[in-house]
Amino acid sequence: MTTQPAPAPAGHERNATPRPRHRGRRVLMKGNEAMAEAAIRAGCDAYFGYPITPQAELLEWMARRMPEEGRPFVQAESELGAINMALGAAATGARVLVSSSSPGMSLMAEALSYMAASELPVVVINVMRGGPGLGSIGPSQSDYFQATKGHGHGDYRVPVLAPASIGEAMALTADAFELAERYRTPVIILTDGILGQAMEPVELTFREPPRVDAPWATTGAAGRPPRVVRSLHLKSEDLEAHNLHLQAKYAAIADREVRHETEHLEDADLVIVAYGTAARVARTAIARARDAGLRAGLFRPVTLWPFPSAALRDLATHVAGVLVVELSAGQMIEDVRLAVEGRVPVAFTGRTGGMVPSPAEVVAALHGLGTSAAAPDRRPDR
Amino acid sequence: MTTQPAPAPAGHERNATPRPRHRGRRVLMKGNEAMAEAAIRAGCDAYFGYPITPQAELLEWMARRMPEEGRPFVQAESELGAINMALGAAATGARVLVSSSSPGMSLMAEALSYMAASELPVVVINVMRGGPGLGSIGPSQSDYFQATKGHGHGDYRVPVLAPASIGEAMALTADAFELAERYRTPVIILTDGILGQAMEPVELTFREPPRVDAPWATTGAAGRPPRVVRSLHLKSEDLEAHNLHLQAKYAAIADREVRHETEHLEDADLVIVAYGTAARVARTAIARARDAGLRAGLFRPVTLWPFPSAALRDLATHVAGVLVVELSAGQMIEDVRLAVEGRVPVAFTGRTGGMVPSPAEVVAALHGLGTSAAAPDRRPDR
Amino acid sequence: MTTQPAPAPAGHERNATPRPRHRGRRVLMKGNEAMAEAAIRAGCDAYFGYPITPQAELLEWMARRMPEEGRPFVQAESELGAINMALGAAATGARVLVSSSSPGMSLMAEALSYMAASELPVVVINVMRGGPGLGSIGPSQSDYFQATKGHGHGDYRVPVLAPASIGEAMALTADAFELAERYRTPVIILTDGILGQAMEPVELTFREPPRVDAPWATTGAAGRPPRVVRSLHLKSEDLEAHNLHLQAKYAAIADREVRHETEHLEDADLVIVAYGTAARVARTAIARARDAGLRAGLFRPVTLWPFPSAALRDLATHVAGVLVVELSAGQMIEDVRLAVEGRVPVAFTGRTGGMVPSPAEVVAALHGLGTSAAAPDRRPDR
Amino acid sequence: MTTQPAPAPAGHERNATPRPRHRGRRVLMKGNEAMAEAAIRAGCDAYFGYPITPQAELLEWMARRMPEEGRPFVQAESELGAINMALGAAATGARVLVSSSSPGMSLMAEALSYMAASELPVVVINVMRGGPGLGSIGPSQSDYFQATKGHGHGDYRVPVLAPASIGEAMALTADAFELAERYRTPVIILTDGILGQAMEPVELTFREPPRVDAPWATTGAAGRPPRVVRSLHLKSEDLEAHNLHLQAKYAAIADREVRHETEHLEDADLVIVAYGTAARVARTAIARARDAGLRAGLFRPVTLWPFPSAALRDLATHVAGVLVVELSAGQMIEDVRLAVEGRVPVAFTGRTGGMVPSPAEVVAALHGLGTSAAAPDRRPDR
Repeated sequence: MTTQPAPAPAGHERNATPRPRHRGRRVLMKGNEAMAEAAIRAGCDAYFGYPITPQAELLEWMARRMPEEGRPFVQAESELGAINMALGAAATGARVLVSSSSPGMSLMAEALSYMAASELPVVVINVMRGGPGLGSIGPSQSDYFQATKGHGHGDYRVPVLAPASIGEAMALTADAFELAERYRTPVIILTDGILGQAMEPVELTFREPPRVDAPWATTGAAGRPPRVVRSLHLKSEDLEAHNLHLQAKYAAIADREVRHETEHLEDADLVIVAYGTAARVARTAIARARDAGLRAGLFRPVTLWPFPSAALRDLATHVAGVLVVELSAGQMIEDVRLAVEGRVPVAFTGRTGGMVPSPAEVVAALHGLGTSAAAPDRRPDR
Repeated sequence: MTTQPAPAPAGHERNATPRPRHRGRRVLMKGNEAMAEAAIRAGCDAYFGYPITPQAELLEWMARRMPEEGRPFVQAESELGAINMALGAAATGARVLVSSSSPGMSLMAEALSYMAASELPVVVINVMRGGPGLGSIGPSQSDYFQATKGHGHGDYRVPVLAPASIGEAMALTADAFELAERYRTPVIILTDGILGQAMEPVELTFREPPRVDAPWATTGAAGRPPRVVRSLHLKSEDLEAHNLHLQAKYAAIADREVRHETEHLEDADLVIVAYGTAARVARTAIARARDAGLRAGLFRPVTLWPFPSAALRDLATHVAGVLVVELSAGQMIEDVRLAVEGRVPVAFTGRTGGMVPSPAEVVAALHGLGTSAAAPDRRPDR
Repeated sequence: MTTQPAPAPAGHERNATPRPRHRGRRVLMKGNEAMAEAAIRAGCDAYFGYPITPQAELLEWMARRMPEEGRPFVQAESELGAINMALGAAATGARVLVSSSSPGMSLMAEALSYMAASELPVVVINVMRGGPGLGSIGPSQSDYFQATKGHGHGDYRVPVLAPASIGEAMALTADAFELAERYRTPVIILTDGILGQAMEPVELTFREPPRVDAPWATTGAAGRPPRVVRSLHLKSEDLEAHNLHLQAKYAAIADREVRHETEHLEDADLVIVAYGTAARVARTAIARARDAGLRAGLFRPVTLWPFPSAALRDLATHVAGVLVVELSAGQMIEDVRLAVEGRVPVAFTGRTGGMVPSPAEVVAALHGLGTSAAAPDRRPDR
Repeated sequence: MTTQPAPAPAGHERNATPRPRHRGRRVLMKGNEAMAEAAIRAGCDAYFGYPITPQAELLEWMARRMPEEGRPFVQAESELGAINMALGAAATGARVLVSSSSPGMSLMAEALSYMAASELPVVVINVMRGGPGLGSIGPSQSDYFQATKGHGHGDYRVPVLAPASIGEAMALTADAFELAERYRTPVIILTDGILGQAMEPVELTFREPPRVDAPWATTGAAGRPPRVVRSLHLKSEDLEAHNLHLQAKYAAIADREVRHETEHLEDADLVIVAYGTAARVARTAIARARDAGLRAGLFRPVTLWPFPSAALRDLATHVAGVLVVELSAGQMIEDVRLAVEGRVPVAFTGRTGGMVPSPAEVVAALHGLGTSAAAPDRRPDR
C-alpha cells in the first residue's frame, strides 16, 4: 500500500479549474474538493451525481476535473438517475463514485439494495445535512441509522467509513474503492457539511488501489460465457443460498475490516465515543476535561459498520462510564449500548438540525456522567 | 372505541367486484383484501399505489372499491409518485393509504422523511418480500431495520404495527389511521406475503376512528390565517427546535403506544420473541416444545417501534434464555439485545429469501438455547 | 341532442367553491372555468392535469368540482404522467379530459400518438401561450401546426376545435366528447389565454352527449372475450392494414365533421380567414374597413382539422384576395394556401409572443391586400 | 472545407470494437454505424440517447467509440432525459448528437422547442419506424410533418436533412453540425430503418466542420460578463422581438441552405418528388418507366425544411404532372402542393406501417398520372 506524494492537479487551460491553494508544503482545500480529487487519483472511472448543498463543491470539482481526465461525469436527472447510472457503470467493471447529501441519499435506497444484492462495487459519499425532510443545510450526523441499518430493503450491510479530518477523508476515499472492489459491495463515506466545506491545510497524498479482477463485469462475452448481473432469484431456495453467501461475506468484513482509533485511553475513567466532526469536538472537550481533573479519553470508530463492538466491549470492562456524542438525537448510541451491554452507564449528548455541540457542553456531560458512574449500578435506557 | 359488525361490502353492479366469501358466520378473505376493506371502512379518503407482488391484491381491491365509494384511487407513475401524491393529499387533511412491497418501500424513503418532518399522517402497508434487490416474491421480514430505524434521512421515528393474523391486520389498519392522525405521523403496517396472500376465515368487524381536528390542513385560508406545510427550516436553531418537538412527540408515543402480547409465559424458562408470521410458527413450535418437556412461551411485539423494551427487560430477569425467530438474517434481534442487555443468552434462528422456518427448526433452536442457558454466564454477540 | 339550461354548480360547504357570478339572466365566467364546468356537465368521468399558466383556472375548477361530483381529479407528476393516466382511464371506457398550455402539450406528443393509434377517445384543451420554449404567458395561436399536423410521430390526425367565444367554448367542449367517442380519437380544443382568462357573460347551457357503446373498453372480461388496447403491430402488413383503417376514418371525419362560419361574405371583395381570438379582432376590423369603404368579410374555421378547404376554395373563386390573421408568425396560412391554390392573392398579418394584432393593423393589411389584389396576377409565397 | 479520406477507426484493445469491414477500397457499413462514426469524426463532443429499434446500432456504436475518444456517451433514463442533457451540454458550447426513432422523437418535442427558442445547436437523428404509437419496427417516413412543422409548440423551424444513401448520410452528418452551429439551431437528420440498418459499401470520407465562436456558451464568466441561456421572455414585447429575430434567421436559412437534386429532368414530362428511401425506389421506377416509354425524372429534396419550393415551382411550369412517393399516408405532398399551386396535377402513391412501395407500384402510378395529366385541367385535392 504505497502512498506517493502527488502534484497538484493540472489546470484546465480556458476555464480556470480551481487549483488547490498551497501554504508552505501543504495545500488548503475543502473536504469536498479533497475527496473529489482523491477519487480521481484513486482511479475513479466515472462519476454520477445531482447537485445538493452541502455536497455541491464535490460535484463541481468532478464536473471540471473528470472531463480533463477524459472520464465521464454525468449530472443525471435526479439522484435516482445518478445511482442507477452508477449501477450500470459498475456492472461493466468501472470504478464508480456517487455523492449526495441526506435527502438525495434517501432517493438511492432502492438502487443501493439492488447493488448490494447484485454485488456491485460503488463508493457513495454522503455529506450529511440537518434533517429530517428538507431540513437545513447545516452539518449533521443524523443519517447514521440509514447508513448502517435499514436504508434499502432486505438483509444487507454496507461498509461505512467516517473520516474526522480532510486528510483522513482523502485516504478513506481510496480505501473505500479498495473495499468496494475486494468485497464487491457498495461502500458509504459518511461525513458532514463541516468536513465537506471547511478548508484545512492538507498534505496531498494520493493512492490508487490496484485493479482487481472483475469477474462479474459485463464487458462483452467474446471468448467466454456470458455474465449476468442481477438481483432477482425467483426460487426462494436460490435467494436464501444467495443470502447465506452475502451474510458470510458480511461476517468476513466484520472480522477483517473493522477500524477505530483511540486517544488518551491509557488512564481514562470516562470514554467518549464519537466519530467525524463530533470526535473533533470531543478531542477539545477531553483536553479541557483533563485540565479540570477528569480523566477522559476518546474512542473513535472509523468504520461505523462494521462497528468496533469487540474493542468497545473490552474497553467497557475497565472504565466507569461511556459518553456518546453525536450531531443527532442519538443513533450510534444503539450500537454503543449493544457493545457495552449494560456493563457501565452510557450517557448521550448531542445537538440536531445543523447545530454542533460545544466543547463546554461535552465537558458538562462528562461531569454528569462521572457523577452517575460513581453511583451504584444503573443501566440507562432510551 | 366502538367495534360494530359490518355487512360485507356491496357489489359493484357491472363489474363483479370480488366479494368476501362467507363460511358460516365468518368470511374467507386474503389478508391484502381484508386490510384494504378495513381501510375503506376506517374512512380512508384516498389511496395511492403502484402494483408489486405480493401486495397486488390490496391495490386491486382498492382499484375497485374506492371508486364505488366515490373516493380517489390513483395508480401513480411509480412508488415515488404514489407517496408524493399521498403527501399532497395528507396536506389537505385527508385520511390516506399507500401500500407496496419491499423494493417499492425503498423508493418512498425520501418522501416519508418529508412527511415525518412535516408531521403529516399517512398509513403505509409494506407486504414484505424476499430481498435484497428484486429478490423473490416469497414472504420475508427483512425490512425490519428499514421500518424501525434508518429508512429515510434524519432523526425521525415511525410507529410500526405488526399483525399476526388477518383479523388483527384489520383492527390494526383502523388503529394505524388513529395513531397517524393523533400524532401527525406516518405509520407503517409491516406484514408479509403469507399474511397478505393466504386466506383465513375472518369476522368482519370494522371501525372508523373519529375524525380529529386537522389544524395543519391546507383547505383554503378563507377566514383564517394561511397554513404552511413544510420540512425546510433554514435556520439551524429553528430546525433544532423542531427536532426537539419531534423527539418529545416520539417519547410520548414510546410512553403510551407500545403494545405486545404474550402466551404461556407464566411458567416459561425460555421465551421466543417473534412477530407476524414468525410468531405463528413460534406458537406451533412452543406447543411441540412443551410436549417435549421444554417450558417455552411467546413474547410477541405488536408495535415494532416503539419496541416493548421495558416489558422484555423485566421478562429477561426471570427466564433462562431468549430465542429470536425472524424471517430474516436477524434484525429485530438488535432491539431484543438492547432490551435484554446481556442478562440472559439471546439466540437466533431464521430463514431468508422467502423461506419460512419450520416449527421443527424452532424447537431445535429452543433445545440448543436450553442447553447453553444452563451453562455459565455467556453473553452472545452477533 | 337536447340543450337544457342548468343551475349554477352547487357550492362545496366548507371551502367556498367559486360560483359563477350572475348578471341578469347571464353569468360572468372565465373561459377556463366555463370549459371546465361544461366538461363536468358533459359527463366527464375523470380529469388529469398539471398546473401551467394560462390554463390554471381550468385545473383549479376541476380540482374543486370533480371531488364534489365524486369523480377523480388527479394532478399528476407531470404532463407526461397526466396524459398517460388519461390513456389508462380512456382504455376503461371513461370520458376523460386533460388540459394544459403549450409547453405542457409538447410533453404529450408521444402519448397522443399512442392514443390515436389505439383509437382511444380523450379531449385535450390547449390554452396556448407565447412560444417557442418557455416563452411568455401571453395569448398565442402558435401551436396550430402542432395541433393540426405533426405533434406526435406517425400518420394520424386529430380533430381540432377552435372556439371564438366562451359560449362557443362550452358548446364545443360537449361536442368534443361526442366526436372523440364517435370516432374513437383524441380531440383537441385549441384556444388561447385571452379566451381562457377573460370574463364574459355567458348563458349557462350544458349538454351531455349520449353514452356510446364502448366496445374497446377493458372493463373486465367476465362473460366475453378479453379486449386488448394496443398500438403495437409488429407485422408491417398488420400495421399497414391498421393505417388504412385509420386513414378511412380520417377521411370520414373530413367528409362529415368540417365546420366553419362566415360573416358579411355576401358582397365581400376581400375575405379574412381567422379563428379564435384572431377572428374577434377581425370582426372589429371588418366593421371599420366597411366604414372606410372596403367590402370585407370573415371566414372563420371552427374545425382546424378537418380544415374547411372546399368551402374556402369555392369562396376563392369570387373574391379578390384573402387575408390570414393569426396570433403567430403564420401557420394556418399553409392550409389556406393549400385551399386557395394560387387563385387569388393570400396575404398575412400576425403578431407573436403574446401580442395581439390591433384592428387597425388588420385594416391596414386589408388596404394593402386590396391594392395588390387589383394588380395583375401574382402568386404569393412564404 | 477539405474532405480527407480517413483510416478506419482504431479498435478497442480488449472489447473488439466492431470495425468497418473493407471490400476493396470501400468499406461495408450499416447506415447507423456510418452516421455514428461520421459524427465522431465531425468532432461530436458528447452523445446522449436511449435505445430504440431501428436506431440501436447508432447508439451502440457511440457507446463503444465515444469512450475510446475520451468523450462522454450517456444512455439517459429516457429520451426526455437524453434531450435535456443535450440541451445542457449544448449550452456549454459542445457539439452534441442525439439519436432516436419515432416514439422517442415525440418525447423530445418540448426540449427541442426550448433549444430552438434558446438558439442552441444540436443534431438529432431520427431513424423513422412505422407509426403511429408503438407501431412496427419497419421503415417509414411518417414523421415528415413532425420534423418539418409542428413537433414542439411555438413558431420555430428546424433544418431537416434527408439522405438517400449511406455516403450522403455521412456527409450530411458533418453538414448538420455546421448548419446547427452557424445558425444556432437544432438540425434533424430524417432517415429510416432501411438506410439505418442496411449495409452498403461506402467510401470513408469524413469532415470536421471548423469550430465557430460560441458566444452563447456558458463556460464560466471569468473576465467577461455572464451569459444566460433561456427561452423565457416574460414581457410579450420582448418575446415578439425574439420571435422576429428567429423568423429573420429562418428566412435566411430558407434563402441560403435549401438543397435538392434532380435526375433525368432534361426531357421529363412527369416528375417524381421523393426523398430518402422512397427516392431510391423512384430511381428504379424511373428507369423502368423510361424503358416503357414514359419520360419520367426525379426531383429529390435533400433539405425537407427549407423545402425546395422555388425550384419545384419552376419545374411545375414545364412538366405535365407530379407524382409524390412517400413511405407514409402522404405528408410531404402538402409542401409539394404548396409549391405547385395547382399548375399541374399532383398525384400520390405510398405505403405505410413499415411497408415500402415497389418500383412496379410507382410505375403504375406514373402511368395513371400520365393519363390524368393529359386530361383537361384538374386540380387534385386530398
